[in-house]
Amino acid sequence: MNKITTLFNIRYPIIQGGMIWCSGWELAAAVSNAGGLGLIGAGSMYPETLKEHIKKCKAATGKPFGVNVPLLYPQTDEIIKIIIDEKVPVVFTSAGNPAKYTAFLKDHGITVVHVIANKKFALKAIDAGVDALVAEGFEAGGHNGFEETTTMVLIPSVREVCDIPLIAAGGIATGAAMYAAMALGADGVQTGSRFVASEEASAHINFKKKVVEAGDGDTYLTLKKLVPVRLLKNEFFRQIHELEMSGASREKLAEVLGRARAKKGMFEGDTKEGELEIGQVAGLIHEILPAEKIIENLVREFNETSERMSGMKI
Amino acid sequence: MNKITTLFNIRYPIIQGGMIWCSGWELAAAVSNAGGLGLIGAGSMYPETLKEHIKKCKAATGKPFGVNVPLLYPQTDEIIKIIIDEKVPVVFTSAGNPAKYTAFLKDHGITVVHVIANKKFALKAIDAGVDALVAEGFEAGGHNGFEETTTMVLIPSVREVCDIPLIAAGGIATGAAMYAAMALGADGVQTGSRFVASEEASAHINFKKKVVEAGDGDTYLTLKKLVPVRLLKNEFFRQIHELEMSGASREKLAEVLGRARAKKGMFEGDTKEGELEIGQVAGLIHEILPAEKIIENLVREFNETSERMSGMKI
Repeated sequence: MNKITTLFNIRYPIIQGGMIWCSGWELAAAVSNAGGLGLIGAGSMYPETLKEHIKKCKAATGKPFGVNVPLLYPQTDEIIKIIIDEKVPVVFTSAGNPAKYTAFLKDHGITVVHVIANKKFALKAIDAGVDALVAEGFEAGGHNGFEETTTMVLIPSVREVCDIPLIAAGGIATGAAMYAAMALGADGVQTGSRFVASEEASAHINFKKKVVEAGDGDTYLTLKKLVPVRLLKNEFFRQIHELEMSGASREKLAEVLGRARAKKGMFEGDTKEGELEIGQVAGLIHEILPAEKIIENLVREFNETSERMSGMKI
Repeated sequence: MNKITTLFNIRYPIIQGGMIWCSGWELAAAVSNAGGLGLIGAGSMYPETLKEHIKKCKAATGKPFGVNVPLLYPQTDEIIKIIIDEKVPVVFTSAGNPAKYTAFLKDHGITVVHVIANKKFALKAIDAGVDALVAEGFEAGGHNGFEETTTMVLIPSVREVCDIPLIAAGGIATGAAMYAAMALGADGVQTGSRFVASEEASAHINFKKKVVEAGDGDTYLTLKKLVPVRLLKNEFFRQIHELEMSGASREKLAEVLGRARAKKGMFEGDTKEGELEIGQVAGLIHEILPAEKIIENLVREFNETSERMSGMKI
């Protein structure tokens, strides 16, 4: 038992990151059934789709699960209403102002966690009354902070100002990294990338295979003039990154990015022209596994690392 | 005793990174006397200056110390000759091909370590016969790799292909981070930034004060079209970074950078117009301390973290 397992009433302090196009009800339910906390990623769902995923998730698991809500979409009010109506026990908010919904969600008995990438927003989220924080480092996949602070530096920095439960994200796909994150001051971890390469992820099999094939240095943070996003290096990445480095305007970048790039890559499997959001840690992910096995490995590796480090003094 | 302390015949597996303008004989000798491995940074020294520093270092400590040699300067042959003549026991090479000097240095009984930032160069250095590797993450100060892999991901990635002693660098200024790095697979750590804010560093006091004042998000990796370098955000940084983001050519960037920017900032103390190379971890460095106290803190914090994590199972 630690602060995270107590807060969410789960067995292991392992959160499956809520991701667009990858984490529907099947993944969330599988993770929760295996003792972690599964999150449905609402970012890529219409309200009606989300409602369906929540209903299916409730049918598939009796364990706690949550929904990740990026606060940047016009339909957020509607989404929050569905979450409350469906009595989802946990909400992770990201990409927006934590002050907007935290009190409202908590009034409905929901545990609220906010994702941050710097100290300033950590303080803002704590002020808003969140129950826990996810501090996400530069190495994480998908949308990312402007400061580019890595997990190694971000976790102790946030810990300096944070007394509430702290979840580390970014660069974590093994039990050893989980143990390292907790040595740095985290109470638990969130990993998205590791679960993209799971059997239950709704990601297209082409994308899952690309994640497994990815090696050292195969992702990069780009689109810094819009919102920084970490992508697998493919044809689309090279095109947009070259544009950015040549000094292209926000407008030009947005035009080339177009609409539905992420869906095209991650959900429809166009690994050349689509946007493939994944963390640096893809280089350490070598096979597609069932979510249950992923949790089992994380736990085993964590305990092995603990054994190896046990009593180490210098 | 571990692989690193055995290799260098030192007490603690803590290396003080060799840095331009910051790590002369006084710092290196102080670190070695305190039980770590001090490194003189040859990168900012003329051969004659380096010779003087080596002689003074030998007079100031009977303990092993080393010299860091970036392999990109025209006078490298001359520098290597001085190191051999002066019987320096350890050489760290960086920023160049490890095949060039490793065998030659080892033939003279010198322990050779090479600094890398990706798996490919790790393999190249191992092939060249180095005795150990420093794997340096994206969060590190000064010159940095193109792949931008963070310490959290780089250490386990390199560990996958590396059986020789492995030293983690980047994001490490506390004993907790040192412990985390070792949980990730490192045998020891190198920290430059923490020692910039030491009494013995040859850095200008203005620069040391800036490091201590720096907070979360106050450094950034820039000049990616030349050689990526992590700088403290000051007037010079803002000028050059804006230029880069507007699509300026390598030539234009080199022209604005000019010569001796790093000396101006770090050694002469012009914190506005000079180049201030420091790691993200500056945000976790809160006071200027004697090198001996820094080592003492790292050791104490490491052992405290070990105690805190002891027997943790999930």
